[in-house]
Amino acid sequence: MMTGEQYRDSLRRLKLEVYYLGERVDSVVDHPALRPHVNSAAATYDLAHDPETEDLGTAKSHLSGERVNRFTHIHHSPDELVKKVKMLRALGQRTGTCFQRCVGHDALNALFSVTYDVDAQRGTGYHARFLEYLKYIQQNDLMIDGAMTDPKGDRSLSPGKQADPDLYLHIVERRPDGIVVRGAKAHQTGAVNSHEIIAMPTAAMGPDDADYAVSFALPSDTPGLIYVFGRQSNDVRRLEEGDVDLGNARFGIVGGEALVIFDDVFVPAARIFMCGEYDFAGSLVERFASYHRQNYGGCKTGVADVLVGACVAAADFQGTAKASHVRDKITEMVHLAETLYCGSIACSLESRRLAAGNYFVDPLLANTTKLNVTRFIYEIGRLAQDIAGGYIATTPSERDLRHPKIGPLVAKYMQGVAGVPAEHRIRIGRLIENMTGGTALAEAMHGAGSPQAQRVMILRQANLEHKRRLALRLAGIADQ
Amino acid sequence: MMTGEQYRDSLRRLKLEVYYLGERVDSVVDHPALRPHVNSAAATYDLAHDPETEDLGTAKSHLSGERVNRFTHIHHSPDELVKKVKMLRALGQRTGTCFQRCVGHDALNALFSVTYDVDAQRGTGYHARFLEYLKYIQQNDLMIDGAMTDPKGDRSLSPGKQADPDLYLHIVERRPDGIVVRGAKAHQTGAVNSHEIIAMPTAAMGPDDADYAVSFALPSDTPGLIYVFGRQSNDVRRLEEGDVDLGNARFGIVGGEALVIFDDVFVPAARIFMCGEYDFAGSLVERFASYHRQNYGGCKTGVADVLVGACVAAADFQGTAKASHVRDKITEMVHLAETLYCGSIACSLESRRLAAGNYFVDPLLANTTKLNVTRFIYEIGRLAQDIAGGYIATTPSERDLRHPKIGPLVAKYMQGVAGVPAEHRIRIGRLIENMTGGTALAEAMHGAGSPQAQRVMILRQANLEHKRRLALRLAGIADQ
Amino acid sequence: MMTGEQYRDSLRRLKLEVYYLGERVDSVVDHPALRPHVNSAAATYDLAHDPETEDLGTAKSHLSGERVNRFTHIHHSPDELVKKVKMLRALGQRTGTCFQRCVGHDALNALFSVTYDVDAQRGTGYHARFLEYLKYIQQNDLMIDGAMTDPKGDRSLSPGKQADPDLYLHIVERRPDGIVVRGAKAHQTGAVNSHEIIAMPTAAMGPDDADYAVSFALPSDTPGLIYVFGRQSNDVRRLEEGDVDLGNARFGIVGGEALVIFDDVFVPAARIFMCGEYDFAGSLVERFASYHRQNYGGCKTGVADVLVGACVAAADFQGTAKASHVRDKITEMVHLAETLYCGSIACSLESRRLAAGNYFVDPLLANTTKLNVTRFIYEIGRLAQDIAGGYIATTPSERDLRHPKIGPLVAKYMQGVAGVPAEHRIRIGRLIENMTGGTALAEAMHGAGSPQAQRVMILRQANLEHKRRLALRLAGIADQ
Amino acid sequence: MMTGEQYRDSLRRLKLEVYYLGERVDSVVDHPALRPHVNSAAATYDLAHDPETEDLGTAKSHLSGERVNRFTHIHHSPDELVKKVKMLRALGQRTGTCFQRCVGHDALNALFSVTYDVDAQRGTGYHARFLEYLKYIQQNDLMIDGAMTDPKGDRSLSPGKQADPDLYLHIVERRPDGIVVRGAKAHQTGAVNSHEIIAMPTAAMGPDDADYAVSFALPSDTPGLIYVFGRQSNDVRRLEEGDVDLGNARFGIVGGEALVIFDDVFVPAARIFMCGEYDFAGSLVERFASYHRQNYGGCKTGVADVLVGACVAAADFQGTAKASHVRDKITEMVHLAETLYCGSIACSLESRRLAAGNYFVDPLLANTTKLNVTRFIYEIGRLAQDIAGGYIATTPSERDLRHPKIGPLVAKYMQGVAGVPAEHRIRIGRLIENMTGGTALAEAMHGAGSPQAQRVMILRQANLEHKRRLALRLAGIADQ
Repeated sequence: MMTGEQYRDSLRRLKLEVYYLGERVDSVVDHPALRPHVNSAAATYDLAHDPETEDLGTAKSHLSGERVNRFTHIHHSPDELVKKVKMLRALGQRTGTCFQRCVGHDALNALFSVTYDVDAQRGTGYHARFLEYLKYIQQNDLMIDGAMTDPKGDRSLSPGKQADPDLYLHIVERRPDGIVVRGAKAHQTGAVNSHEIIAMPTAAMGPDDADYAVSFALPSDTPGLIYVFGRQSNDVRRLEEGDVDLGNARFGIVGGEALVIFDDVFVPAARIFMCGEYDFAGSLVERFASYHRQNYGGCKTGVADVLVGACVAAADFQGTAKASHVRDKITEMVHLAETLYCGSIACSLESRRLAAGNYFVDPLLANTTKLNVTRFIYEIGRLAQDIAGGYIATTPSERDLRHPKIGPLVAKYMQGVAGVPAEHRIRIGRLIENMTGGTALAEAMHGAGSPQAQRVMILRQANLEHKRRLALRLAGIADQ
Repeated sequence: MMTGEQYRDSLRRLKLEVYYLGERVDSVVDHPALRPHVNSAAATYDLAHDPETEDLGTAKSHLSGERVNRFTHIHHSPDELVKKVKMLRALGQRTGTCFQRCVGHDALNALFSVTYDVDAQRGTGYHARFLEYLKYIQQNDLMIDGAMTDPKGDRSLSPGKQADPDLYLHIVERRPDGIVVRGAKAHQTGAVNSHEIIAMPTAAMGPDDADYAVSFALPSDTPGLIYVFGRQSNDVRRLEEGDVDLGNARFGIVGGEALVIFDDVFVPAARIFMCGEYDFAGSLVERFASYHRQNYGGCKTGVADVLVGACVAAADFQGTAKASHVRDKITEMVHLAETLYCGSIACSLESRRLAAGNYFVDPLLANTTKLNVTRFIYEIGRLAQDIAGGYIATTPSERDLRHPKIGPLVAKYMQGVAGVPAEHRIRIGRLIENMTGGTALAEAMHGAGSPQAQRVMILRQANLEHKRRLALRLAGIADQ
Repeated sequence: MMTGEQYRDSLRRLKLEVYYLGERVDSVVDHPALRPHVNSAAATYDLAHDPETEDLGTAKSHLSGERVNRFTHIHHSPDELVKKVKMLRALGQRTGTCFQRCVGHDALNALFSVTYDVDAQRGTGYHARFLEYLKYIQQNDLMIDGAMTDPKGDRSLSPGKQADPDLYLHIVERRPDGIVVRGAKAHQTGAVNSHEIIAMPTAAMGPDDADYAVSFALPSDTPGLIYVFGRQSNDVRRLEEGDVDLGNARFGIVGGEALVIFDDVFVPAARIFMCGEYDFAGSLVERFASYHRQNYGGCKTGVADVLVGACVAAADFQGTAKASHVRDKITEMVHLAETLYCGSIACSLESRRLAAGNYFVDPLLANTTKLNVTRFIYEIGRLAQDIAGGYIATTPSERDLRHPKIGPLVAKYMQGVAGVPAEHRIRIGRLIENMTGGTALAEAMHGAGSPQAQRVMILRQANLEHKRRLALRLAGIADQ
Repeated sequence: MMTGEQYRDSLRRLKLEVYYLGERVDSVVDHPALRPHVNSAAATYDLAHDPETEDLGTAKSHLSGERVNRFTHIHHSPDELVKKVKMLRALGQRTGTCFQRCVGHDALNALFSVTYDVDAQRGTGYHARFLEYLKYIQQNDLMIDGAMTDPKGDRSLSPGKQADPDLYLHIVERRPDGIVVRGAKAHQTGAVNSHEIIAMPTAAMGPDDADYAVSFALPSDTPGLIYVFGRQSNDVRRLEEGDVDLGNARFGIVGGEALVIFDDVFVPAARIFMCGEYDFAGSLVERFASYHRQNYGGCKTGVADVLVGACVAAADFQGTAKASHVRDKITEMVHLAETLYCGSIACSLESRRLAAGNYFVDPLLANTTKLNVTRFIYEIGRLAQDIAGGYIATTPSERDLRHPKIGPLVAKYMQGVAGVPAEHRIRIGRLIENMTGGTALAEAMHGAGSPQAQRVMILRQANLEHKRRLALRLAGIADQ
């Protein structure tokens, strides 16, 4: 298992084609705009080596019997799913942001069972292929970008009906030794600092969409893969000197998302896990999405713990910590965060064994969890902004604070309670600004799928007919 | 283990002094106003004999090794706490209301550990006494009212400062063979159809309140115990002919609460479990309350399942089932209900072993769960009233429906979609009315303690200092 | 203008065919179940004679120049619409419930303009007819039930497609001197204690529905009109002795709704205001509904004022008035109530003059107001139940309180702060129970139309194209 | 009256000492980071010359009888207050952001009446002085920063108890010809592009705080006044080439707030409007704050109109415009925005005449309005992020879009529905990002005072005793 530092070195050896702000990025590890995201991902490696957390950060591979980083592990019990959640919360607490590696983890777990199911029904050989790949990942402790979301173009049209057929990733050529694919995956968290990319279809599909029902893995620096790194709130503050204004200088803001373009990329046969079996696309989406939605009550609760702590500190620094309304708002933040956590724990415990032998979270509860995230993270952010006060939106820059003439005046007037340096108060304000700004919120909304996707799944899983019969019986309607 | 029918018979043998609407009640089993509550409690007995649910409804006693009704069992693992939650949900689905027996169950589990703790610190002998009592309960499969809430008089004053000292239950005489107590317990769910009453103090207490720090058990028909059964929404409809207007004629509305008056009642020494150890009162309250708050994401979710089903039926009967806003509201109801369920599951899984050997739910998560109940049950009710339509507030009575002249007109104009009898539509409307009316909601608010009690516990359990340190580290505040 | 007492006398002279609980009602004024509703309506008469409120309760008729009860007046300025709102709030404060007379008032104002518009386009003579009728109403100070809501049967089908054509009120015969109508109107507030019934269509209609596009007025005791009075929460408590358990013994709970059946009723030509002009049905619905939705931030705010006051009293009586969380909840209740009030004021001020000369509230803001009512009244009720405590759901009956043996015990243990009689505390609890129970809430949801009806109107009125252009311009999208 | 262009020129003639990012700013008009805020303020000048809006943008001065820019006008009727709200909404629609000039306007209106009241009780001559100043402002059409918020240091201590006495602005020297003041005002919207600064105390004060009870006006370029311009979300994107990534390139994000430092500044006697009358400080705060809170249902509703429009466009561009959940969310956004507008209209209409002759908004309703803003703007933003989709957080930069190699690929994969250029979709996404990011939200929370300030005012204005009496009467509690 790699350490965080070894992970960084391994990234330096890759030759990805990454663009940001109109320029090719030399090194994702060393570019100031990308470095924080690399640091967050590196925390997933360090966690496995920390004696305090190795029980969370590692697991015993069911293939090799060796301890592997949990992010490469296939869940084989409810307890392992619960540990995943606790690992995510611990990492959220340490980084205060997204550490990106769960998407690949979830892709592995989804494909593990779906390749098994396809083989069982079609006599294909995907599962054995996949196991080889999984061994490779576990042995080399690689980080994977699980890539699902297509650009989708006109959302009212299916893949095959788009004006531009490339708006969903698809097979453009089938060769004896593999396939050539074209298209893109949008919003790819951690893609630029992953070793591998696993592509999966983005939606249930019909017979007309067979070329779009494709799943495979590729090294992230495969020729033809182009990454365009997206903008985040306050991204260019990272190009400035100093660290105060960044809020969370070391770990950044959410995951660092990129548009990943597949510009006629060749995929060798050994890395293809689905190739035209359109009727399994929906199952793969549902598996991946449910695993991924499970996460959000783990990582986001860890992140919320940090935000609660920042508000406690801000209140201390400003002399409002004892105000009953402040205490009440902090209570509410904790309450909302723990509600999210409960969801992730519960969907893990209520998991069930699949035919392939691994465990699948309860999809109803996993979707319930994520849907709450799309509300509560916003409300937690709102409460944090309330407690913090207006200064998170108006504080002068670090450069003003360091200015020989006005720096002392800024410090004098940014002072809170006596004894706490004004810079501390500013730093906490910047952390809250970082954690409650646009990008951080939007990720809570759309990461792991938009709210409506969760609602559709909740309704589908709700077993309304059973509930209806319960009601009819109690209402005394005899013939039902 | 008794069946529901045996339970009813056992109640007939008791001689409780119960009043309702200014009159002494002859038989709680046979009085139309009380019968539905008895039926609900009886469901806890029948569940244990139903092959489909016996795994939930029974458990293996850690004392005798025999199978006992789970409502008399001491939880010895997280899994047993999870099973409790599933049992409660199953019963909520079957009764559509409160089945009352959890209060006694929670009292047993709380006293099991607190008597142990008191003995450990004080060298008292409460735990052995309590085990004798527990054996008696398990062997006879008795229903217990766990009685905690005192009248409390002026809430701004502690027990000892009340103008009337009896507003908190207290010891008025200490004898060699026992004690005499005076006072009352308010809002006692299921008290009139319980075999036993276990009294517990209602709050943390100080040295001045030693006489109020008292816990004990008594047969429910002990002389001096007087029960005044409270009014519920639409209670007197039960005195009418017919069953339509009741909504849930068989199982009623929530628990059937009584004011239980202890009019100088003698308690023999063998049934005293706390007697003056005021510094353990808080611990007993916290244990009982947390176990009790755990329940609410179980039973209320089961009840919500029924309400969701009633709305599905109402929409079917009225031709609105396909309207997107109706589907969306049903989705929301399911989402909220499952969120509650997640809380109960999570606080069970995150339970920890106490010194006495039994398992205690995570109090932070249990309180989080109950606090959500005080909001979501109201919102679920609001959505149900929205979907149902105005007729839940205006439908003519069953007697009008049966009237020779206007009955056919009422049926004609209460008709929904063709083919479904108007009476079916009315019955579903009455069920929704029953489940969303005043008493049902108020119980979700104040049962197991009012919201502010949960907020106080959440803040106390939140470990803000840990969260604060997480934030300071990420903010780059070095010396923290 | 009549006084409340004269109004009661006038009702005694009518011969309505009213049923309740399967029996014909002799006198709506003197029947204990109906009397409170009559008292509420009577308050609209008394208000006009109270020197303190006559500016609100009366207006100068634009027809006669005489002062008339405002409930018979046609609004001729924004200021008059504002006064209507203030009148409703004052009455809500006095009655704590619905006083029913606005439906007729809104019907008059809607028909005033729609009859004008129909005449203008069709050369019909409805407006002159209507003015004659209006004079009659103003001179005799009559109370009118504005009857819109049809039973609607299968909501997915239009009027003409129902299995039973009578599920929407329609013309079954056209005669030279009038028409014969059949059908029913559901949920008719105040119908049984009105002098007149004005029927209006319930929805926009198409050419196939011409027989359903009918509006007319009838004396409430016209042969063939049958009223079946609906059940409310706790309705039969009114048949008991005593007044405590009713909460608001004098004025009851919301409006007292009836199913009004038109069993082949003849309508003379002079009282027909629409007869087949289906393309104006939508306009009449929109006018009536918007006026009616305007009301809800007036009357419900007055009612909420009472509920806030009840919570203040409850907190006083229990010793919780100084608790910060109680003060905060009261603040929230006030905040929500005033938000509703703002809506009614604003839609009045933003009214515009119609072709007929009267003023029409801003429909976007009126619908916004009512939609908030469907949420905030529930939340206000929830907060009230929170502040009040569990006793609103468990308090023994008045008969227990008066019982020679247990009465003193009940009083002893229902005591709050010293010095306030327990009965006072119980009375306030019963008032809160009354105001937050099922029927009261459901009326806030569905009165003046269900939430989805408001949402449809809001979307239609939102002028999205204008908003879209604003955005495109600021986004720098040149060609838009 | 100046035009926007004349306003810009007038600013160029001022010599303010402004710092931003550690550097002195040469020209606030021409600095790319400040220019958008100047443009927004300029819109208040242009509005007065636009024939379509001159009725809103101008008013007839009660001093001179001439038409003046409404932002310099003293409100002399409810109708004028309503027009203020409509003017603010119109400007919000045009700029999509804060245009800053209301703070000075509100300061004028508050001081107009408070100087009158002080004179009436103390025989001072402030009002006449103030009228001279007002004439000067009206004649020269100047923009004023109304400066209230002190840094406040330790919020648990009053001004006089702070470790550093300068943390509240105060008098350090009294001279025959004027005073010298020291301290600062934080979060000053529009300060760097105002002609004048009016300082006011920030809170009610006691006898010990007399030196802090000071109000005065100064030209913004008075020596000793130092401005440090605060950072906003994505502020440095303005220093980049291109306009796409700014979202609202012309008008920016909220107001552009500065820390204004009074470094021993001399104030001539003629410009002093309060000087030690501590017992009027609270009144001045309440008047200013209430006027200022009135605004938020005007300007923010206008801004929300733009955001709704942006969502409509985004949905069009992505093919989701017909999805029922999207339509429902747009309906909800409109509903929430109109609720805010209702508040501002209502508090204006319910204004009352003060002794000085001007009109004062209803403070209960004005505070209610602003409190809703602190919730609904967040919810509107959340819904906008939901509708927009994840791309607002991940879209590549404009420089990537313009890049010769990857630009076409970015455009290809950012494409929505066929026929709409990808750049249009990106622009709308950036506008939504701009309007829902951190700074924009925080301003809605804390501008015009934090939520708790509104709650305190609401509770104080609620007349609970009146409400209590209403309830007691209806509950039948005779002796109240």
